[in-house]
Amino acid sequence: MTIYNFSAGPATLPKAVLETARDEMLDYQGSGMSVLEMSHRSPEFDKIIKDAESTLRELMAIPDNYKVLFLQGGASLQFSMLPLNLAQGKKVYYLVAGSWGKKAYTEAVKLSKTIEFEPILLASSEDTVYDHIPSFDAATIDPQAAYVHLTTNNTIEGTAIYDLPDTNGVPIVADMSSNILAARYNVEDFAVIYAGAQKNIGPAGVTVVIIREDFLNDQPMLSSMLDYRIQADNDSLYNTPPAYNIYISKLVFDWVKNEIGGVDKMAEIEREKSGLLYDFIEKSDFYTSPVKFAKDRSVCNIPFVTPSKDLDAKFAKEADAAGFKNIKGHRSVGGMRASIYNAFPRQGVLDLLDFMAKFEAENK
Amino acid sequence: MTIYNFSAGPATLPKAVLETARDEMLDYQGSGMSVLEMSHRSPEFDKIIKDAESTLRELMAIPDNYKVLFLQGGASLQFSMLPLNLAQGKKVYYLVAGSWGKKAYTEAVKLSKTIEFEPILLASSEDTVYDHIPSFDAATIDPQAAYVHLTTNNTIEGTAIYDLPDTNGVPIVADMSSNILAARYNVEDFAVIYAGAQKNIGPAGVTVVIIREDFLNDQPMLSSMLDYRIQADNDSLYNTPPAYNIYISKLVFDWVKNEIGGVDKMAEIEREKSGLLYDFIEKSDFYTSPVKFAKDRSVCNIPFVTPSKDLDAKFAKEADAAGFKNIKGHRSVGGMRASIYNAFPRQGVLDLLDFMAKFEAENK
Repeated sequence: MTIYNFSAGPATLPKAVLETARDEMLDYQGSGMSVLEMSHRSPEFDKIIKDAESTLRELMAIPDNYKVLFLQGGASLQFSMLPLNLAQGKKVYYLVAGSWGKKAYTEAVKLSKTIEFEPILLASSEDTVYDHIPSFDAATIDPQAAYVHLTTNNTIEGTAIYDLPDTNGVPIVADMSSNILAARYNVEDFAVIYAGAQKNIGPAGVTVVIIREDFLNDQPMLSSMLDYRIQADNDSLYNTPPAYNIYISKLVFDWVKNEIGGVDKMAEIEREKSGLLYDFIEKSDFYTSPVKFAKDRSVCNIPFVTPSKDLDAKFAKEADAAGFKNIKGHRSVGGMRASIYNAFPRQGVLDLLDFMAKFEAENK
Repeated sequence: MTIYNFSAGPATLPKAVLETARDEMLDYQGSGMSVLEMSHRSPEFDKIIKDAESTLRELMAIPDNYKVLFLQGGASLQFSMLPLNLAQGKKVYYLVAGSWGKKAYTEAVKLSKTIEFEPILLASSEDTVYDHIPSFDAATIDPQAAYVHLTTNNTIEGTAIYDLPDTNGVPIVADMSSNILAARYNVEDFAVIYAGAQKNIGPAGVTVVIIREDFLNDQPMLSSMLDYRIQADNDSLYNTPPAYNIYISKLVFDWVKNEIGGVDKMAEIEREKSGLLYDFIEKSDFYTSPVKFAKDRSVCNIPFVTPSKDLDAKFAKEADAAGFKNIKGHRSVGGMRASIYNAFPRQGVLDLLDFMAKFEAENK
């Protein structure tokens, strides 16, 4: 039985990457060492982290006046680091279109009890379980604010922002964890982009932060580890980085570049793959998408429901038994969620459609 | 040529662990997935992290009233998390016997500019380049202080504390990064033990924190990720943990338990292995140890120097060419440093002694 891993993250990695990792496990390119045990100050690792950065720069067309950092703590630690470093006593706005965006806002509020600045909820679609990207009037944004935070892809709810909103000139900071490298964004439209690796980049345990240099703090932060300036000045080697996680990320960047042909091609593949599922759901009178507007559809996370909760539970159980793993939806949305990130094989979507058709026929 | 990796960390892992990691890379125990791409909420990973914890509990005899956490950010993030969570407005003392202990103190001072508490330098051997563990008068410690911080093994300088000092009843918090599982400590003697994995536990990117439950904070911290209570209440799954790093750590814990026979046996092996080097250096009138007192000797990091800086440089260069990698000492101490953590093979020490004898004969 073929196993397809629909996990929302950590998620499927390219098979070729895993094969390379396996082949190099005991001896990385003749060094006599595994990358798992290699000094982060060694010439071998120096090349790995520099190659990872340069390939990511090429893939995303990151301008020279942006720093690329490989940090620890996931997007969740960025929820605190961002306001800590960037708020500077000012207003900061949060566009909340999903559970993770709300967490980002909640952490800013939490921090604001110790560090002085003003987090503001710009708009939220929480009252409709985040079934769409909420709109707002840009004129309500104080142009002196430090930033507007948004989430480009809502992992749990399956929505995404492709066209950035008007923020009245205030810089945009984005959590791109679940669709980085799966959709094309113009890096220059952002002050900061950050992404936990475990969806489209690599294994859990490394977080990419892309920050425009003039947003690096001038004053020291309360912790060196939480200080973007220190991390940037040390090229992500202020302390021992998650070296193996960076190595796997590098292999994934190489895969997107060499096997796929870059981000535009990858985005095209993701649109086609997710389109197969959306088309099927649209044509069905059995399955429904909880996403309200077609323009908000994520290409990475596709939630869907059957006509009842009982059938949802039955679907999830039978799908798991048939090798479609981790397809049960998040408890806040219910139903199912097919996370089909960059490395998820197209054949897995086709096989899922067959299974969905069969399940519909048996349970209609 | 056999390669021996004397890196101070990330450091040599047991070959058997790497072989298992290689064999399971594409299919973890019939799951059809790599641990690199496995959901942290899957039954497979649930078992990995629980097994990791229970084996570590067994190895270190961790009592039930201690929580075991697997966090991100290295010991360096603990330098901030500890005072943030534990200081509670009180005095905190730092015994500084090495460069990392000084960093821990420096971070506490940095944090105290934002959060009110009083970091105090209890004693330091910095003026003699940390060539010994400094002593202090316990009566100078305010018994109402929150904790006394110490480093059980000074990675750079090659010293260690085996017998804990009298702290006037104040709880001890210890950075055990570089000799955890290599020497026997009584966990009940500590309020908190923490250790970056990349020396004796596993790959860089995961940090073990062992904390007595009554030291968990009752008040929320300024960031959920930096809040021991939240991390403990969520069994280290508040956000996506560094799953692969935890998996490798579990394999190392299994290795210490099953292949070595536990921490006491491991400690005996480390004493014997390091003893070979110390005996050789003691008998030599060419090599010298910068560690002042035999009682302070680390079993994991053994620094040594030749009669001159030129010969040190020559040694490091020739050793590297002969397959003895990363043996150059830290720039603050100079000379060489042989880091021979748990997984470092005894044969590597014997081969190094042969090389040292030959180098001495050629350069005396």
